[in-house]
This record gives sequence, structure tokens and C-alpha cells, in this order.
Amino acid sequence: MKDAAEILDKFKIKHEDQIVSAHRTPTRLEEYGKHAEKMGFKIIIAGAGGAAHLPGMIASHTIIPVIGVPIMVYNDKQTKSADNSKFSSFGGLDSLLSISEMPTGSPVVAVGINKAGNAGIYALKILANEFPELKKKLKLHKSEQHNSVLKESDILKKQGLSKFVQKKFK
Amino acid sequence: MKDAAEILDKFKIKHEDQIVSAHRTPTRLEEYGKHAEKMGFKIIIAGAGGAAHLPGMIASHTIIPVIGVPIMVYNDKQTKSADNSKFSSFGGLDSLLSISEMPTGSPVVAVGINKAGNAGIYALKILANEFPELKKKLKLHKSEQHNSVLKESDILKKQGLSKFVQKKFK
Amino acid sequence: MKDAAEILDKFKIKHEDQIVSAHRTPTRLEEYGKHAEKMGFKIIIAGAGGAAHLPGMIASHTIIPVIGVPIMVYNDKQTKSADNSKFSSFGGLDSLLSISEMPTGSPVVAVGINKAGNAGIYALKILANEFPELKKKLKLHKSEQHNSVLKESDILKKQGLSKFVQKKFK
Amino acid sequence: MKDAAEILDKFKIKHEDQIVSAHRTPTRLEEYGKHAEKMGFKIIIAGAGGAAHLPGMIASHTIIPVIGVPIMVYNDKQTKSADNSKFSSFGGLDSLLSISEMPTGSPVVAVGINKAGNAGIYALKILANEFPELKKKLKLHKSEQHNSVLKESDILKKQGLSKFVQKKFK
Amino acid sequence: MKDAAEILDKFKIKHEDQIVSAHRTPTRLEEYGKHAEKMGFKIIIAGAGGAAHLPGMIASHTIIPVIGVPIMVYNDKQTKSADNSKFSSFGGLDSLLSISEMPTGSPVVAVGINKAGNAGIYALKILANEFPELKKKLKLHKSEQHNSVLKESDILKKQGLSKFVQKKFK
Amino acid sequence: MKDAAEILDKFKIKHEDQIVSAHRTPTRLEEYGKHAEKMGFKIIIAGAGGAAHLPGMIASHTIIPVIGVPIMVYNDKQTKSADNSKFSSFGGLDSLLSISEMPTGSPVVAVGINKAGNAGIYALKILANEFPELKKKLKLHKSEQHNSVLKESDILKKQGLSKFVQKKFK
Amino acid sequence: MKDAAEILDKFKIKHEDQIVSAHRTPTRLEEYGKHAEKMGFKIIIAGAGGAAHLPGMIASHTIIPVIGVPIMVYNDKQTKSADNSKFSSFGGLDSLLSISEMPTGSPVVAVGINKAGNAGIYALKILANEFPELKKKLKLHKSEQHNSVLKESDILKKQGLSKFVQKKFK
Amino acid sequence: MKDAAEILDKFKIKHEDQIVSAHRTPTRLEEYGKHAEKMGFKIIIAGAGGAAHLPGMIASHTIIPVIGVPIMVYNDKQTKSADNSKFSSFGGLDSLLSISEMPTGSPVVAVGINKAGNAGIYALKILANEFPELKKKLKLHKSEQHNSVLKESDILKKQGLSKFVQKKFK
Repeated sequence: MKDAAEILDKFKIKHEDQIVSAHRTPTRLEEYGKHAEKMGFKIIIAGAGGAAHLPGMIASHTIIPVIGVPIMVYNDKQTKSADNSKFSSFGGLDSLLSISEMPTGSPVVAVGINKAGNAGIYALKILANEFPELKKKLKLHKSEQHNSVLKESDILKKQGLSKFVQKKFK
Repeated sequence: MKDAAEILDKFKIKHEDQIVSAHRTPTRLEEYGKHAEKMGFKIIIAGAGGAAHLPGMIASHTIIPVIGVPIMVYNDKQTKSADNSKFSSFGGLDSLLSISEMPTGSPVVAVGINKAGNAGIYALKILANEFPELKKKLKLHKSEQHNSVLKESDILKKQGLSKFVQKKFK
Repeated sequence: MKDAAEILDKFKIKHEDQIVSAHRTPTRLEEYGKHAEKMGFKIIIAGAGGAAHLPGMIASHTIIPVIGVPIMVYNDKQTKSADNSKFSSFGGLDSLLSISEMPTGSPVVAVGINKAGNAGIYALKILANEFPELKKKLKLHKSEQHNSVLKESDILKKQGLSKFVQKKFK
Repeated sequence: MKDAAEILDKFKIKHEDQIVSAHRTPTRLEEYGKHAEKMGFKIIIAGAGGAAHLPGMIASHTIIPVIGVPIMVYNDKQTKSADNSKFSSFGGLDSLLSISEMPTGSPVVAVGINKAGNAGIYALKILANEFPELKKKLKLHKSEQHNSVLKESDILKKQGLSKFVQKKFK
Repeated sequence: MKDAAEILDKFKIKHEDQIVSAHRTPTRLEEYGKHAEKMGFKIIIAGAGGAAHLPGMIASHTIIPVIGVPIMVYNDKQTKSADNSKFSSFGGLDSLLSISEMPTGSPVVAVGINKAGNAGIYALKILANEFPELKKKLKLHKSEQHNSVLKESDILKKQGLSKFVQKKFK
Repeated sequence: MKDAAEILDKFKIKHEDQIVSAHRTPTRLEEYGKHAEKMGFKIIIAGAGGAAHLPGMIASHTIIPVIGVPIMVYNDKQTKSADNSKFSSFGGLDSLLSISEMPTGSPVVAVGINKAGNAGIYALKILANEFPELKKKLKLHKSEQHNSVLKESDILKKQGLSKFVQKKFK
Repeated sequence: MKDAAEILDKFKIKHEDQIVSAHRTPTRLEEYGKHAEKMGFKIIIAGAGGAAHLPGMIASHTIIPVIGVPIMVYNDKQTKSADNSKFSSFGGLDSLLSISEMPTGSPVVAVGINKAGNAGIYALKILANEFPELKKKLKLHKSEQHNSVLKESDILKKQGLSKFVQKKFK
Repeated sequence: MKDAAEILDKFKIKHEDQIVSAHRTPTRLEEYGKHAEKMGFKIIIAGAGGAAHLPGMIASHTIIPVIGVPIMVYNDKQTKSADNSKFSSFGGLDSLLSISEMPTGSPVVAVGINKAGNAGIYALKILANEFPELKKKLKLHKSEQHNSVLKESDILKKQGLSKFVQKKFK
């Protein structure tokens, strides 16, 4: 979720970071929904892994738009494996579906698995509707992305593919 | 869910049938948990399809054991298709995972997809720990199942396979 | 996509309906992006099936937030099957992933498969940030959903489960 | 399975730990069923990987409720790979389905993959129906979980997100 | 399973058809293994759907080679749906894995889903090792298959593709 | 495969239609490879379902580029089901992977499942490298597709969405 | 495949080990089929990964029963990754389906993914039909498996679970 | 993609290597299509991961045949994990489907996941239609592959399987 916070920081958007658990603090969900509306939050970004009920349950307690970030959970963390290898049974697909397949009438939208950064940018796109200066910044960001690809392609042309690949992955 | 109710009725176990929606009546979840504990419910069977947050959210509001029944949702119901063909995008796998993959500390157990009947029988198995007369009934039920297979196998032997199949599937 | 339009109509939100194809009218994508920004569109809802490139490609041509609706494609439509049975090879999962798994920096958000109605409601949630009267309407909508569940649960209690099920699915 | 034993130990519930193999000691299954009933076992927790027939076969030999724990099997263990990388062909999905998809009439319930700890807690929830003092302990356990989330959220607030993440994952 | 019986009948191989259920008649599994060895059975073909424990459990009770046939189970049969549409949650993949993924030391082999006919032919291939006249018949069968493809290809050439397709699928 | 033939006919490209089976006429594969090279075939389009070995095996017998078309196989055809419902265990994914996942050094390329028409158009694209007049025709075809989308979008605008949908799907 | 050879060696069964590639030595397939029949081979065990056409293609060239072993292919081997982490796109499922889903009339049977050892034991089971002394050895092998489980269970009882687990996984 | 370049270099085929991004440089796609046609490119090989829109979008801007290479994306790269373990949520299946499942009329063909080398060889197969000397080289390449398998099989025979495996994987 840090990626989302970093994007928001970079664009100087204030955000409140909290830990809410759908299953360990269920009674807090309603409270959180009220708090969010009272505070005038405009978007809620909720990350969740495994059964991933959090984004949907928050969305059911408020009309603020919720962006869900499916988080891939490693089985090996669960079993406290001593070695440095990790495996995820479903690769986050369970979380993606638990976020996107909300019943009709109660939408949560999902970004890709682990893509909290994209949730942050999407939040900026939403906010840009109200704050025109954000629009300009987003356009600038877009053209920077554009230029960085052009620059990288130029380096590739100069170095040739094999040298380029070698440098990139060493 | 009717299959679960029928099994419970057959074994003369009282049950309360309610419609609770994790997303449309979220504030009722806590209330329902308290109600269930006050009523002295011993088991909660919760069916849910799609994102299927209901069983997990109820379980987080009470210590009563929850049996989750993943329900397969047809996409065609959603789109009100005029013809008589149906398709389910995930065949209930999304619901199965949303029920079973609860985080450590907050268990819900899952029976197979659409298998509310099995949830009913499992509830009886749990209750039989407290009510010995149920044990006897469950053993009787088991031996009836055993005998019905033997009887069917005898019919197969007498009729021969091709005749047996013909009668069975006509 | 009609479900999205109906929701927007119900809440009296103006929308422009167009057919754009990522692959058959690729040169129009850029043009459409400019048109959308010039028109001051605040949200774009883009439905797409199969390879489902449309939402992502529109998003790459504009900073307006795009809500992608994965549409399940039936193989049998493709092969003009004469009978009334239908099958979808991937049940829309291919489209869901093609929409959600956008690279970092270019987000599209996804609702569930075929859930254009949810895209419509999510659009309303976004707009409600700017238009407070929408907030009230959305809260009303939420409480209507809440009440309809309560009412249905009451009917269930009065009729008993088996009668209730019989009426519902006849 | 150690996680299940630890939970039961923590709550001071006696348990018998045994190795039974559905395929290597098949004649022992019936014997084990009788033993379990004679011993007055109230719950059987059975972990199994791959084809995972054990929970279902034990359940078919007794009316004691069986909680199945799907165990993820690594292919690399099978091939004695020398390096420290591991891969599981199905991530435990094969085991989950082999446990949950039991035929109607013979239920086993499944917790999530590798989640033996959840099986232990679920066993406690079942036992709490008979032993009221367990109810209190479970409620205490629930509120401890609740408080630990609140505490962690407070730390997050004080430290800020980036410092919090840094400490947590170093 | 009728397809297997028909192939065996066509090649005049005697077979005994029985109904055994891993879960409803578990105590009969051991008995069946002994019976099969006493009768001198050379191959056991076992079909099973869903959790599909039967082939593996029979194999664990005897050294006779077991050919498992994964059977696709329709969810709609389970729910007694009134209409003529059917859906299978896993398409038989659950059964295929439950048959093939037996632990090391206890093999069952699997043919394709619903392919009992292939199990029958494979049984013939095994028996042909002992009974040379079967070898001749199998070679004849192979060359008949070969010729039927050639003949069909000739018809296609004469009729042209569009006419050929039209006749074939009307 | 008829769709491929129709596209080729429409563009006046000669093609030879044959039935070859990887498993029923395996000795013919080599012969077919030689025949194809002698005839000067420039592209081979091979459709195959299930295990789908045909495209890969033909490719291994010739250096002519092979386009594989994964064909979805219905399980119900296999079991001669009397009703009009059909189901495919893997939706053609088994065939798609059996075609695309050829070992390094032996490529076959795959189009989408059942998309023989796309294989036909791709063949035209390859041939257009050698035959410039085909290039023009393909460009014309592209612009026709473009225009048909524009026209359809205009009709949508005139009729409004709900009327448009109603006409389209009645 | 070494596991299969080891099992056969242990039971003193002669076997010929060869490298045949369906795609790199396609013309050798027919030759190999003839060779195998001339040599009087009774069983062919064929391992294959990825598109895994080998077992099916050999089976189409001979009536000797073929046992297919799906081999999991790592993507990282393909890309010569420098680090010690490995990933398999399909975990061998592509190979399993390419082996089991052979068309009706051309069976190959599949053991589990990477389970060459099980293919070896299954071959012994087939051979035991003809060679009674093998039957005895297989029964001995089965009872050794049985006893090793009992012994392990005894150790567990003596040491207690936590000590047992600690020793086993250190 | 380096594997593709290497194959082309080995066969002395000129190629232009560029970085184009469907989402970061969308306005360049059309330009690139025009450039490719003006330069007389005969084949475009486009690699893409995740949502993988690039091959399809390029194909929609030109009639030059496009070979798509699905690239497996690791989630751990995204999250900058410090350890040496990697995981891919979908193993490249998302990319494979996004490339192959293009709508009718707009084909892209796909090789296997990460198999850029196969895309290179396929390109040679296409070019060989126009340049007969390439045909000879490809046939030579094929027979080299054939011979290397024969040679390896001979080594296996001489060394015996266990020694052969030991040398190969040490």
C-alpha cells in the first residue's frame, strides 16, 4: 500500500493511513464509514489479501467510492518457512475476485494484483475532476512517461539490443 | 439453502431462516451476531455467492461456528437472458475461496459448491456431540446410505449394465 | 452496458453512448480521448470482451478516469451455433485480467464480469464528491436496498422457507 | 498441522496426534473410526495434500465431524531438487476441492489451504457449544485480536506509513 | 462407464459391473479388493466424479492396476433444476486431479474426463500383452480408424468443404 | 474451420482442405508434410481440439509455417447426451496450450479458441508480403471494418441506447 | 524419469532408456513404435513437458500401453535466469491435459505431475498380471509402506507433536 | 525478446529493435504502424506482459503480420522484494489470452509464454516463403536438432540413465 501513499505524497494529496481489519475489527467498519464521511474523505483505497472482504465491507458502510487493491498472500509466510522461497496458492486471484465480484448495487472497483500505485493514480484521476490543477499535473506525468519510453528506445538503438539487455538485467 | 433446511427438518432440528446481506444490510450483521448468541444458536449456516462475504462477516461478529455454503451464481440471471441457457463465470470457485481463505484467527469452514445439504448434515454431526440420540439417527442414516448402494448394485447385476443405464437416464 | 445507462438515467445523469472499437477503429481512440476531455466528460465507462483492450487504450489517451466492464463472450455466438446452448471459454476472466492488470502508471479499474450496473453506480459515487445532491440520492438508494432485504426476510419468516423458495423460483 | 495442536494446547484442549494414511494404511481407516468413537473424540482434524483422500475417507467411517486441512504439496520435494526454490503445481487447490467437493450425504468441511490454525480455532468454536468456559476464552481471544489491530493502527499513525512499513518488513 | 463396457463387449472380454461407493460403502472397499484378487481380475476400471476418491481407495486395497475415469458432475443435477441447462463448476478437473495426483507409491492412472471408452481400450492394450489374439484385433481396430479418416477425407474432397460441413452438422 | 475457408475464398486464395488426424493417421503426417512442400503450400492452417497434437506434429514434419486453431470440444458430444445443453471441461484452454507451448525450436502459432476466421486473415497477411495486390485488399477490408463501426455508432446515436439494444438482441 | 528407472531396477525389471522427441525427431516415432513391438516391450513410459505430445504420438504408432508422465517445465530455465528462483507458468497442468485428453480411440493414461516413480510402480502392477512372483513382491512393498507409517506414528506418539515436527523439518 | 533477435542474427535477417508502449506512448502506435509499412517490414514481433495490449494494438494499425510473445511478469519485481524469490500471479496466462483472444477480423498469433525464440523461428518460416535460400537453412537447422537428439540418446545408452542424469543436472 506504500506505493499508493507515495504517489499521493508526490502529488501533495493529503491522506489518512489506518489499519482496519474486516474480521478482527468488524465493529469498527461502520464507525470507520461514518468517520470517513464526516472527515469528507473523497476516496478510500483499501488493500486486502486472501478472502479480501475489507474493500467490499467498507463500501457497504459508505457511499464514498472505494478502490480495492488485491494483495497476493504467500503461503510460506503462513507456515513460517525458514528458507527464502515463497509461494502463493492463488497468486491473488482469490482477492481480485472477492473485490470485483461484488453483488449488483454495491460496487467496489479493482486495480491489478499488488498494484497499489495504480490505485493512487486512479484516485488522482478522480480528484482531478474537481481540482483542475491536478489535471495539469497528471498530463505532465503522462508526458514524462511518454518521454522516458522514447529515451529508453533511443538508448536501445544506440547500444544495440544485446548490450542494452545486458546492462538492464545485470 | 433449502436442502439444508430439509435435512434439519428431517432430523427434527429447529432452525431460524433469515435473509441477511453482507452488503445491503451491513449494519444488521453485528445485531444478527448478538441475536444469534442471545438465542443460543449452536451453528450458523450461511450461503453466499460471488464475492461471498456473508459467512466470513457473520463469523467475525460471533463465536458461534459458521458453515459457509458457496453458491454458484449464473451470469445469465444477471443479464436477464431470454433463452434457457446459463453460464457461470467461475462456477462458484470465487465463492469457495472467499469462504475458505479467511485469515488466520477467523475461521469459516466450507462445504462444496451448492452443497447446502452437506452443511445440514455437518451441523447434525456437530450437534450429535451434545445430543446422543442424534448420534443414533446419524448412524441409521449412514447405514441406509450403505444399503441403498448395495440394493442398486444388485439391480445392476440382475439387469446388466446397458439396461440399467437405459432405465436410469431415460 | 444498458444496465449502466439505466442507472445513470434513473439518477438523471447525462451520458453519451458511443461505439468505439480498439481494433477496428484504432485511429479514433486518440480522437475520442480529445473529444472526451473537450466535452468535459468526468468518467468513461468502457465495456469490452475477449482480449478487452478498449478500456486500457482509452485510458492511455486521456486522464479521465475509466471504469472497465469485462464482458463475457460466448464461443457459440462466434460459431453461429443453431441450438440454444452457450459456452464461454474463459467466462470473462480473460477480459477481467486484461482490464485490471494494466501496467503501473496506467490504471483502469474493473468491476465484476458483466456488471455494467455496478459501473454505473460507481460513477455516481465519484460524481457525488462534486454534486452533494447525488450523495443524498445514493444514501436513499442504499436504504432502499436495506429495506428491501428486510421486507424479503419478513416474507420468508411468514411463509416459511419451502413455500418462499417455491414462489421465488417458479 | 502443528498450528492446530498449538491452538488446542493454548486453550488446554486434549488431543491425540496420529499419522494415518488413506493409501498406505487403508485397512486402518475403519479401525481408526471405531477407535475415535470409542475414545469419545468430539472432532477430528485431518490434514492432507495432493489427492487428499484422508479427510473424506475418515468421515465415511465415523459420524464424528471432520475438519479437513488442505496442505499444499511442493513438486520440488518430490524431485529432490538441490536448490532452495520450491513450486507447487496446483497450490493446494487440488486438495481443497478433494476435501470440499464430497458427495451429498458425506460432508467434510474445509478451512483454507495450510490453515491448520483455523481448523484448531474452529474446533474450539464447536466445543464451546458444550463447554461454556471455552466461550469466554474465545471471546477474550477475539477482543485481543481486536485490540492488537487498534494498537498497530496507533503505531502506524505515530510513525507515519513509510517508517512503519520499513520497520515491519526489514 | 457404459462406453468402457461396450468396448470390452465388442472385444469379447468378460467384465463384472458393480457399484461401489468410497464414501457410502467404505467398509466394502477392502472386501472388494480381496474379491477382485480372488476372482483373478486383471484390471479394475473405476469411474468417479467430484472428490473422486474411489479409484485411489480401491488401488490402496489391491495390487491390481486401476484405471480411473474422471466423471464430470453437473451442479444442476444436484439442485434439481427444472430447465434443460447444465453447468459443471470444475468441468471434471477436480476429479482428474483427485485421481492422478496420488501420493508416490500408490499409483492410479487417469484417462481424460468422461473418457470411459478410452479406459476400455487401454485395458485391452494391457491384456494384449498376455493374449496375443487381442493384439491382432487391436491392430485391426487401429487400421479401421485409419481407414475411416481416409474415407472421410475423400468425401470432403469430393463434396467441397462447405457442403461437407453442412451435411455433417445438420 | 469453415470460417478460414470462407475468408480465403472471399479473397480468392486457393486452398486444399483435408482431414488428417495426428492419432488415427499418424503415418500420414510425414507424407502430408512432404506433399505440402512439394505442392508449394505457403501456409498450413490446422485446427485441433482436446489434446490437440495435430498442429505441432505437422509443424515438426515441415518448415511451412503452421497456424494452429484451438477448437473447443464439448463433453456432451462425447457422451451423446440427449438434451440440448453442452459443456466443455476446459473451454479449449487445453488445446490452446497444447498448440502454443511447443518446445523451443519448433514453433506453432495460435489464434484464439475457435477463431478459424482469424487464422484465415492472418494467412492473408503473410501472403500479402509476397503478393502486393493482397495488401490493397486487406487495407480495404480494414477500412470497411472501420466504417461499419462508425455506421453502427451513428445508428446508436440516432436511436438511443435502449432502442438500439432492443433491436440488436431481439 | 529417473524415479521410474529406479523402481524398475529395484524390482529387477529390464528396461531400455531412450531419448525420443516428438518434435525434433518426428520421423523416428514410427520407427520407435515398430522397434518397441519387435523387441516385445510390454509397457512404454513416456515423460513429456509443455505441449507434451510425445506420449500420445508414441501411442498412436503402437498398441503397446503407454503411461504418460507430465513433467513440469520451469519458465526460468528457458530464460536462463541467473538467480536461484524458478517459476512454472502452468505447473504441469498443460502437460497433464495434453496427455490425458487424448481423443476417443487413442488412449494414453497419465500419472500425476512429475510422478515418474508412480509410473514405474504402475508398470509393475501391469506386469504382475503375467508374472506371479512380481505380485508377491508388490504385496511385500505395500506392507512395508504400511509398516513404515505405523512406525512413524509410534515415534510421533513417543516424542509428542512439536518435537516430532522439529526433528522432521530441521 | 533477446532470443528472437539472436535467432534472426544467426540467420542473418535484419531487424529493427524498438521500445513501444501501448499505454505510455499510445500516440506513437499509429505512427509506428505507418513507419513499419513504409520501411517494408515483413513481420513484427511484439512482446508484452500483464494486460499485454501492445501486439493487438499494433496489429490494428497495420496489415503486417504480428507475432505476439506473452511475457510472464513477476509480482515481486513490482514490489521490489529484497529476497531472491519470485512469483507470477498468472504465469503469463493473462498475457497469452490478451494476445490470442483478439476479436474476429483482427488477428494476432501467439507463441508460448516467454518463447521469443520460437517467434524468431516462426518469422524465418514466413520469410522462407519468399526467400528460398532460407528454406535450405531452416531444413539444415531442423536436421541439426534431429541429430543432437540422436547424439544425446547415444550418450544416454553408453552412460546408463543414472550417470547420464547426474552429469546433466549437476
